[in-house]
This record gives sequence, C-alpha cells and structure tokens, in this order.
Amino acid sequence: MSINSFGHLFRVTTWGESHGPALGATVDGCPPGVPIDEAGLQHWLDRRKPGQNKYTTQRREPDQVRILSGVFEGQTTGTPIQLMIENTDQRSKDYSDIKDKFRPGHADITYWQKYGIRDYRGGGRSSARETAARVAAGGLARAVLATLLPELRITGYMVQIGPHRIDRARFDAAQIEENPFWVPDAQAATDWAEYLDGLRKSGNSVGAMIEVTASGLPAGLGAPVYGKLDTDLASAMMSINAVKGVEIGEGMAAAELTGEANADEIFMGEDGNPVYSSNHAGGILGGISTGQDIIVRFAVKPTSSILKPRQTITRAGEATEIITKGRHDPCVGIRAVPVAEAMMACVLLDHYLLHRGQIGHNRGAIG
Amino acid sequence: MSINSFGHLFRVTTWGESHGPALGATVDGCPPGVPIDEAGLQHWLDRRKPGQNKYTTQRREPDQVRILSGVFEGQTTGTPIQLMIENTDQRSKDYSDIKDKFRPGHADITYWQKYGIRDYRGGGRSSARETAARVAAGGLARAVLATLLPELRITGYMVQIGPHRIDRARFDAAQIEENPFWVPDAQAATDWAEYLDGLRKSGNSVGAMIEVTASGLPAGLGAPVYGKLDTDLASAMMSINAVKGVEIGEGMAAAELTGEANADEIFMGEDGNPVYSSNHAGGILGGISTGQDIIVRFAVKPTSSILKPRQTITRAGEATEIITKGRHDPCVGIRAVPVAEAMMACVLLDHYLLHRGQIGHNRGAIG
Amino acid sequence: MSINSFGHLFRVTTWGESHGPALGATVDGCPPGVPIDEAGLQHWLDRRKPGQNKYTTQRREPDQVRILSGVFEGQTTGTPIQLMIENTDQRSKDYSDIKDKFRPGHADITYWQKYGIRDYRGGGRSSARETAARVAAGGLARAVLATLLPELRITGYMVQIGPHRIDRARFDAAQIEENPFWVPDAQAATDWAEYLDGLRKSGNSVGAMIEVTASGLPAGLGAPVYGKLDTDLASAMMSINAVKGVEIGEGMAAAELTGEANADEIFMGEDGNPVYSSNHAGGILGGISTGQDIIVRFAVKPTSSILKPRQTITRAGEATEIITKGRHDPCVGIRAVPVAEAMMACVLLDHYLLHRGQIGHNRGAIG
Amino acid sequence: MSINSFGHLFRVTTWGESHGPALGATVDGCPPGVPIDEAGLQHWLDRRKPGQNKYTTQRREPDQVRILSGVFEGQTTGTPIQLMIENTDQRSKDYSDIKDKFRPGHADITYWQKYGIRDYRGGGRSSARETAARVAAGGLARAVLATLLPELRITGYMVQIGPHRIDRARFDAAQIEENPFWVPDAQAATDWAEYLDGLRKSGNSVGAMIEVTASGLPAGLGAPVYGKLDTDLASAMMSINAVKGVEIGEGMAAAELTGEANADEIFMGEDGNPVYSSNHAGGILGGISTGQDIIVRFAVKPTSSILKPRQTITRAGEATEIITKGRHDPCVGIRAVPVAEAMMACVLLDHYLLHRGQIGHNRGAIG
Repeated sequence: MSINSFGHLFRVTTWGESHGPALGATVDGCPPGVPIDEAGLQHWLDRRKPGQNKYTTQRREPDQVRILSGVFEGQTTGTPIQLMIENTDQRSKDYSDIKDKFRPGHADITYWQKYGIRDYRGGGRSSARETAARVAAGGLARAVLATLLPELRITGYMVQIGPHRIDRARFDAAQIEENPFWVPDAQAATDWAEYLDGLRKSGNSVGAMIEVTASGLPAGLGAPVYGKLDTDLASAMMSINAVKGVEIGEGMAAAELTGEANADEIFMGEDGNPVYSSNHAGGILGGISTGQDIIVRFAVKPTSSILKPRQTITRAGEATEIITKGRHDPCVGIRAVPVAEAMMACVLLDHYLLHRGQIGHNRGAIG
Repeated sequence: MSINSFGHLFRVTTWGESHGPALGATVDGCPPGVPIDEAGLQHWLDRRKPGQNKYTTQRREPDQVRILSGVFEGQTTGTPIQLMIENTDQRSKDYSDIKDKFRPGHADITYWQKYGIRDYRGGGRSSARETAARVAAGGLARAVLATLLPELRITGYMVQIGPHRIDRARFDAAQIEENPFWVPDAQAATDWAEYLDGLRKSGNSVGAMIEVTASGLPAGLGAPVYGKLDTDLASAMMSINAVKGVEIGEGMAAAELTGEANADEIFMGEDGNPVYSSNHAGGILGGISTGQDIIVRFAVKPTSSILKPRQTITRAGEATEIITKGRHDPCVGIRAVPVAEAMMACVLLDHYLLHRGQIGHNRGAIG
Repeated sequence: MSINSFGHLFRVTTWGESHGPALGATVDGCPPGVPIDEAGLQHWLDRRKPGQNKYTTQRREPDQVRILSGVFEGQTTGTPIQLMIENTDQRSKDYSDIKDKFRPGHADITYWQKYGIRDYRGGGRSSARETAARVAAGGLARAVLATLLPELRITGYMVQIGPHRIDRARFDAAQIEENPFWVPDAQAATDWAEYLDGLRKSGNSVGAMIEVTASGLPAGLGAPVYGKLDTDLASAMMSINAVKGVEIGEGMAAAELTGEANADEIFMGEDGNPVYSSNHAGGILGGISTGQDIIVRFAVKPTSSILKPRQTITRAGEATEIITKGRHDPCVGIRAVPVAEAMMACVLLDHYLLHRGQIGHNRGAIG
Repeated sequence: MSINSFGHLFRVTTWGESHGPALGATVDGCPPGVPIDEAGLQHWLDRRKPGQNKYTTQRREPDQVRILSGVFEGQTTGTPIQLMIENTDQRSKDYSDIKDKFRPGHADITYWQKYGIRDYRGGGRSSARETAARVAAGGLARAVLATLLPELRITGYMVQIGPHRIDRARFDAAQIEENPFWVPDAQAATDWAEYLDGLRKSGNSVGAMIEVTASGLPAGLGAPVYGKLDTDLASAMMSINAVKGVEIGEGMAAAELTGEANADEIFMGEDGNPVYSSNHAGGILGGISTGQDIIVRFAVKPTSSILKPRQTITRAGEATEIITKGRHDPCVGIRAVPVAEAMMACVLLDHYLLHRGQIGHNRGAIG
C-alpha cells in the first residue's frame, strides 16, 4: 500500500516521475455527462507551467495533457479518466553529482532509506513535477463543479514571501492574475520582484504562505469525524511538496483568542439563509461547511536546492559538500498556488458528491 | 459514507454520542499476540478524564473502558477489538435552551443543515466526548508500539494558552505530568493557573497551542504522496474537535525562512546512522521519517460555550441570544493533549505496519 | 489490515467472538432520518436465532440486540450505529478436547498458523455466531430500504439439502415461513425433516444450497468493473461461513448453454419499461441491474463438527482422533438463509446509495 | 465512486475503453526492488492476445504494453506503475447498427440506464478488452511473486465447453500450452476443435468452465472475515466479463456431501508440515490458506454476440431485431484463462503482502 490516491468518491491516483516517459492522473468516480476536452484542462496546466518567468524553474515543457479514456464525444462517461502528460524535456544531463549524494531538505535520503532504490533524476517521484498531474485532475474537478455548483469560485493567492506579507487593506483580487506571484496587491508584486531578484542572484531561496478560498459553497458539506472538510483540506494541502503547515480560518492564531472574540454570531440573512457576524471559523464548523467562504492557508518551506554549499553525506556514508545547480525555483511557493486551487477543487467536489448521495441532504431547513 | 474511521492498516472506527448509552472504538488490524488489558487502557483514559481539576469540565464520569472482543487470555488475537465506554453521567437536565437554538461556534447549525436531525444533548456526535474513544484506541496502539518499537516515546504538552507562550529556555519535560496544563515549564504552570482563574470567573474561554513529539522512530516510515507521514498527522490532528491549524517542524514560520537558514545539513553519526545539524523539517522529508524527532503543533480554538451572551438564531429562523451554561472547559486545549498523543500513537503504528509489510523495508543502508 | 468490514458507502464492520462478552456490528454511512428501533431489528435476529427447532444448534441465547449509538428519538442521525448482542450462554464447558486439537474442516489450524493464537472456545472469531451481527446490520439495511425502495422484496430459501432438491414445479413462496428449512415446497419440508432426522441420529451432517432473490430493484445499480453488483454479491455470500460456491442467474450451468439459448431478448413492456423474454442473467448485465429479479445461489458445505471420529493432529504435531460433541447444526445451511438475506440487503442498499450520489442517475431513459 | 480498483495493498486500477486511444492499469503498492521489464510483461499479454487462432476474435492488435512509471534501471521503485496498451486496431467501422440498439446479453442497456451515455464502440468500458490491462497487472504480480514465493505455480485451464467436460483421468498438465483451448487433455482438444468449428459456422456460441489452481502457497494467507482468500478470489473471478458462477474446492457440489465425506483429515507430513487426506476445501479453511493447492473454478456464459437474429429494442423504445456481426469469439471462455491466472496472481500477491506486514506471521508453528 503506497497510497498514491486521494478522495473518497472522486478518487484521484497520480503516477509518474520527474524524468520518466510520462506522468498523469487516473481519476475514478467522475460523474457522467460532463462536457470536457483537452483544451479546457490545458488552461489550468498552463497556469502552473514552469519557465514562464524568471521566478520559476527554467525547465521548459509544454506540459500537454492528453485524455486517454473516460470521455466520449466530448462528455465524461462515468468510467475512469486517464490524464497523461508526457515528459519532453528529460535532459540527458549529468546526474553524477546527486546520484550518490543526499541533497539536504530533499527526500533523497528518506526515499533511499525506505525503498533501497530511488530514481535520482530530478527527484523522481518526490519531484514537484508530480503536481502537474494534480492540476490536470483539478481542472477536471472544476469542469464538474461548473455544472453542479456554478456559483462556486476557488481562488488562490500568495499572502507572504519570506518576511514580506501582503497588506490586507490593499487586497485587490483583480491583481492576482496580473503578476507572476498571484499576489492580490500591486505594490507587493513590485516589492517582491525586487526581493526575489536579490535572492536569486545570491543563490538563495525563500518560503511563502498561500491562501486559498472558496465562495459559493453550500452549507452541509463535510463528513465528521475523520473525513471532516477541514481534515481533508489539511491533508490535501499538507500532501503538496514542501508544505509545513496548514490553517483554517483563524488558524494558529486561534490559540491567542478568547471565546468572546472568536465567536461568529449567527443572524438570519435577508434571503432566508443564516449569515454570520464574522468568519473566524473559515467557513467550517464541526467539519461541515457553514455556507460562508472556506479559508485555508498553508506555508511552503524555501526551495531546498540552493547554490550555497551545504554539508551532506554520500550513500557510502562519506561526508561531502553539495551545491544544487539546475533549474530551480527560488520560491517553490509561487507554483504551489495553482496546485492548491486544484486540490481545493478536488476536495470540494468529492465532498459534494458525498453530500448528494445522502438522503434528503441539506434537508435541515431553517426558518 | 460518513467516514468515522481513520488509519490504513491499524484502522480505528469511533462511534457514540455524548449522551447516548455508550461510545467506543472498533479497532481492526491490531496485530496478534500483544499483551493488553483493561487496566492498561484505563491508564490513558484517566489522563483525559474530565472533572479532575477546575480547569476542565466538571462532568464527572469514570470513563471506564471495557474490552468486548479481540483479546483472549490477555493477548490480542488479530481479530477486531471493541473498546466500549458507557456514559454514566447522562444528567436528565433540561436541554430546552439549546434544543432549538444553534450555539455559535458549535456544530449545531451545520449538523442540522447536513442531516436534518441532531442529537442536541451535549453536542451529540460532535461533542469532544468522542475523543475518549480515541484515547482508548491510542492506548491500544501504545501497547502494540511498546512491543514493536520499545524506544519510541510520544510526548504531548501545551506551549501556549491565549497570549502566554512557554519559555523554551525553561523547557523541563519532567514538569509535564506535574501540573494540570501538561506544560513543561513550572513558572508557566503557575502563571497560567492565575490567568485561567480570571478567565473562568469572567465566563470567558481561551485558545491554546499543543506540541506533540515522538522520539525513537526509525527512518523510512511514510507513504508518499497522499499518505505521507505529515499528511496523515495533519489529518489526525485537524480531526480533533476545535483544532484550526497544524504544523510540522518549522510549520507556518517556514514561510519566513531562506533556504540557507532552513537547511538541515546531514552528517554521519558515531553509531553509523545519519545525524542532522538541525530539525527544521520536524523529522519528515518528502513525507518519510528521517529518524529525527517528529514534531507536530496544532492550535485549538477557545471553547465556544461561554457565559457571555451571544447572538444566534433558532431553528425557526428567529433571532435570539444564548448563554451556554453547563459544565464546560475554559480551555478545551488542555484536554486535547492526551487526545493528540493518542492520535500520534495510532498514526505512527499504522505507518510502522505499512512499512513492515514492504519487501526489504529499511533496506537502503547508508555507509 | 484484517478486513472485518464490507460495503462502500453503507459500511459494516462486525466484531466479536463466539464466547466473548459480546459481538456486534458498527455501521457507518447509514442515512439519517430513518425510523429504527431495537424491536424492528430483533425481528430479524429471531429468525436466525439458534435452538428454535431440532435441526439447528441447541445453543439457546436470546440474541437480544441493543442500539448503542446513532439513533435519536427513534430515528437514525447519520452517525455510526453500534449494534451489540451480548453473549449470554457462554457455558463454562470443558474445552480441553479442542484446545490443542485442530478440528478437520474448521479454521482451527489456519487461525493458528496465521495468528499464532486463537480463541478456541466455540471457534472464536471463525464461529458462525458472527453472522448474528450481519443479521442485525441487515435488519438496519432493510429499514433504510423500506423508506427508499418500498417495492423491494428480498427472499431467501433453501433449494437443496444433500441429494434432495426442490421441485420447481411445486414452488410456493407462501411455504417458506411455514417450515424449519425455509423451503418453498411443502412436500420437500416433510421429506427433508425425515432425511435430517436420520442424519442427526447417525451423527453426520450435510450440505445445502440456498437461493436468494430480490424483486423490485430498479435498473442501473452496480459499479463496474470491480464493484459490479454480482461481484459484490459473490463476495458477500462467499464471506459467509462454510460457503463454497456462488452463482448468479444460470450460474455454473451457463457453461453448458449456447448463445442462442442463453439470450434474454428485450422488449418494451406496457408500462414503458424494458422487459425480457427470460432471466438467464439473474438480473445483472455488465455488473449493473436490469430491473429484473436478482437471483443468487450459493452452496454451503456440511457442518464439519460431526460425531463420526476423524483423524487429526494436535498443536504438538501428534496424530489423534476427534469427535466433535457439542451443540451443532446437522446442516449449517439452514441458518444461512436469514444471513444471506441480510447480506443481500446490505449490498443492495450500498449500491443504491452509490447510485443516488451520481449525477442524473437513471437518466438514460428509454423510449 | 465507480470502483475500477481491486486489491488491498497491491492495488490495481484499470482504465480505458475498447476503442479509445489506450487502456491500461495503474498499479499502486508494488514492492520496490523487483526486476521487471516490458518484455517480461509482454509474454503474458501475448498469451491472451486475440486473433491467434480461429477460435478467438479476429481483431488483430499487437497489445504492446509500455511501462510509463515506477520502474528505474530495470527495477520497481515502490512508486505507482503505469502500464499502458495503445489501441491500434480501432477500425473506423460503421457502428450505426449498434449505436442505438441494445445488444441482448451485453451491458449496452444497463450502461445506458446507469450513465445516460455510453461509448458504444465495441462495448466501450464493458468490453472484454479491459482484461488486457488485468493481464498486464497480473504479469507484474507474477514478477513480484517470483521473488517472494519462487515455489508458487499458478495454472489455469478449461475443464468444460458446452456439454463437453474433460476426463479427469486423462488430465495432463503438459497439454495445456499445446492447444488453443488450454485444455489439459489431448483428446478433448481434438474433440472441442471439431465442436467449436460447427458452432462457429452456425453463428452460435457456447459457455465454458475454467479451473485455476495455485500450488506452493504457504499456509496462513487470508484476512477473515470479509477479506477471506476465497471471498477475494470469488470477487476477482466474478468481476471478469461474462462470469456467472465461482466455486472453491468442492464448490456447488458441497451441497450434496455429508460431513463425513467432506472431511479433509489432517496428518503430519514427513517434512514436519501438516498434510491432508483430501482437498475438498480447495486449500482454504475459514478464509485462510492451508498450504494445499488453491482450487477455483468459474463458469463463463456463451458469447452474447451471435449471428442468430435476436429481438431487442432501440433507445427510442422501438422493437427491432439484431444480428451482431463483427470479430467475436465463439467461446469467450477461452481467453478468460490467462485473465483468471492474472487475477489469481494479483489476489495471492495482495494477500501475501497483507500477511507479511503482520507481527510474527506464520508464527503458529505446529509440532
């Protein structure tokens, strides 16, 4: 059991290594009759695609997704959907430097200790390249959600890079697509560009914090007590490469609050649905959606591959030094934005399908 | 599918409501031949038991665990183990105040919206009382781990309560069992007692942060990429009532670090195993254990049941005010400590069993 | 992973041994709002209850089922339902005869070889007593089905006992509840009684074949290709103690047929639904229900505990002889009838819930 | 949840349609360090390949398998293995005849009723072509088993075709690979050829019975009570297209036996392991292997596509007649032999991995 799958009803299994022939996602449980085509999925892959600006890895691949099964005459059929992305830029470079050395901060040493064999080319299975498959599956989930929950909006953006946080007072969603950082703050985009240029030149890297929200989600989604909506979101985000922490709503700051300050008081809205005085809960109570915005944040550690020499050991146990050259992102957090959106889409669809199967779902009317 | 189970091979399903006849855990996948008895499990339940001091709920129950199956002549048999705790203190109190009102911050409204029916007595299934079943299962996991990994130590403690954080310089593990807060800092114990007394008197509550560590875990545990050790720990902790954020190692602070600062450099130890210059990673790389201490932190929101009046609505949609009387913890985070230890034990055992089944596990020798 | 659960959405985990304190079923995924009480479940347990006539084991237990969770004010809440049956007739008999001997045909030797420990009292976990928990879960499934598919009828009956088969020409469903064999043929009931009396007196036992049908099931249920309706039914029936073969529709006899003879031709019925010229398929095509009757048959081997001396070995590897005294059914197949009905109910409900969650289920209208 | 996966630890998900771009198997949980290459897998695919003789479909495809992931430098890495087979012979034939008609005995009508959309080209997902993916996965399972259980031998063969059964007295395993029917009886091979020639010419088809055995399997494999070895084998075989019944050991004939006749008495063998006087049980007691040969039989219904006109309806509900032309096997049972072997290999490996992970597995020594 090596657990390369997630989801309960909308079940995604990703496969493939950084430098193998291809990678992809096998999606089981996609509802039938949903319009889907490769161009629609490609839109999402293009957002994640490397080599688009100087702040992300210079590996250049088209990341072209192909649908190999489960779609007939432009619609899903309810059978498994195979999404494949061929690896085209498998440079026949010299890997001798990392073949027998364990790069600090990478999974090299643990994969070796676990499996006794590792595909060292570009990190193999532990490469962030695996997230391309997630983005493809997320594009599919979005297509399904568009037919089921047309009001739903999923939006990811960066809120912090190293010491620089966004100014919430300047929050402008329209900016997100306008800069290479998906940051909702034009001033931050300028400042961060300068900051990252400096970092990159010095061969260093930096961490980041990303926020993903979903608006338009109905109340009642979530499966207590071990498949809570927040539990599954935490799991989904933590599974992304380099993520070290996940928060819902107030998150870690909840430790500081009093019950009086933290209470989201409840009122009746004009449309006959409950409204809340605030959203400390991040849209989830007892693991079930309230109908408010879902708010998730997560931290990504700095890229471990840096040009600064670090101490490490070889497979033979000898001390050595390593400088990781190659095409690396100075901040892996940037490309985590579309990945996190994809994971959010998959988790929300999965829970919506769980919800639909239930007798009289959302039957607890109020008022 | 309502997902009241967790674990891949050591599979725990909890059941029961706050005020029903009983609650418990059905544990499937426990290895055979492990010595176990009710007294051994009771030890862990007693640590979590309410009513032990003035900082936790005054509900007084013996929380006596019974083993109904899967154990024969003092040893596990490899068949399912049923752990049952009868609810003895089901006060025939008047629930009319909350029967038709939704308590802010509780799952009352979302359970109603999801299921259209809810056992309102004490929160029903969403009550933190469900965690007693986790502690029983965790006790069982510890018994198994004691035979498999005798070096393993799991330790939970509080590191923050409201604005008060522990002083890491005063960290003293020996203090943990000496105060009602499981805080590894004698001075903090005194300060926090005073702080909580004030809060309790004012009818308010407060959040908390808990850290759980595991030392003595071998390298190589964890199932990339969706059953990573950190992914499963994040899921396990987030599933605990009132938890709003989970961190591994540096956690959210990783967003601020540079790659240079974050690198855990690798050396050979004198015993022929790798050692690290630091543990920013919290003992996990690429979802797999490194052999270093596993470090997890999580934040618990303040108890939502407070004596301060809050605005809410009734099932009929009418505006009303609520004051939640009853036997509530001013800081639910305190009793989350033994629960988190139990979840850690279950997750680590589960991953150890996954690991054992693999061919030549831990075969990637170094040196 | 010891896999004491079945079902995808309606998930049943049974637990307990023949002579432990109790046994039961933990049911997760039961829809909310379904009326249920202990008396309703007891009805089904009473049908399976031993000691009701001379053809079944003389162990006499009330097999009283208790609902410990998941039901509030007479309705299911959507949370896990714990069904417990206490073992009251745990005779303090002398087990020394079987403690160290392996009874041929029983799981004694394989449990020992697998687990290295076994609860030898009455077969422990491998006892057919485990099926009481299935019947309780099946009663719950029937209650849910009564609200969802009121037209559905599940009927089990014996069609063969040793060399005696029923005469299909005399098939009379009204007879099923009128004799101790659940045989739809009054003459067979008389003949079989005489036959079994002879067997019982000679200390021998015999096999049986049971048929279970479901009428009123809509078309479209079943999850190809590894959760087909027939696949799940085969698995469910084969999991019952002593079952050695399972058939759908024509079953093993399909090997003899030509395509021409086997074809179930399709016509439009007067009510606008498809009708078929025959039902060789047993109501399932490609793993999905056709709307015709579901027809399943399975064979149960003869009770292995007989009064005839058999050769075996002890745990120490010494040759010995064994006569299994005790309270045994001369034909375990008889009591398999209510168990098979229960399994059918669970599987059909499970697939109905899978079906409901799908977009536009049953949307492929004809005509 | 559309359940295109099977296996607990060695988890196989198949995907793809008869006339889509490709089909394949995503295998998760394959142990690392196992030598594997495409040629090794191809060997098994070639055995199943259509068009090899006049008794199987004349569709001619190379069925070339490609390994897209999970293998590095000739060894499995423990990460998911993607096995892809491109569909090369997708004749641009005219499907208008079956596009709107439901072929009797096929899944056309039920897929339509379930999904409201179906890929009618060659049966789409319900085509027996899906079994090519199973054979690829089975080849992988065999490669792993060869390293873990080198003594294990899995052998499938036909035992009946229409009215013709093999003569057990003439059983000669060496004949199996010598004739197009995988029948262990040279005389039967000759007789059956003549019989099938007649059938084919008349445009008819016929059913078959297949037996699959495994020798060299250790005692102690199987996970009671819902993941029994026989339960999983029944499920695996029943999931194969057109299978209508599955038997273990005596199978359906067990209904006729007395306990005295059915007893497999136990003795100590000269090598210190238990031996049995007979194998009515088919090598499984209580769901766990005894160490004897595993014996499974299953019946395959006659090919539904025949040249005899049959009555059916169109999607519009109009009565019509259908003759299924095309490249069909007169007896689909023939090609089920390698498929059943593949399923047996997957199930046995899966249970062996379950077994290995257990503490002290097979620790219950005898003698």
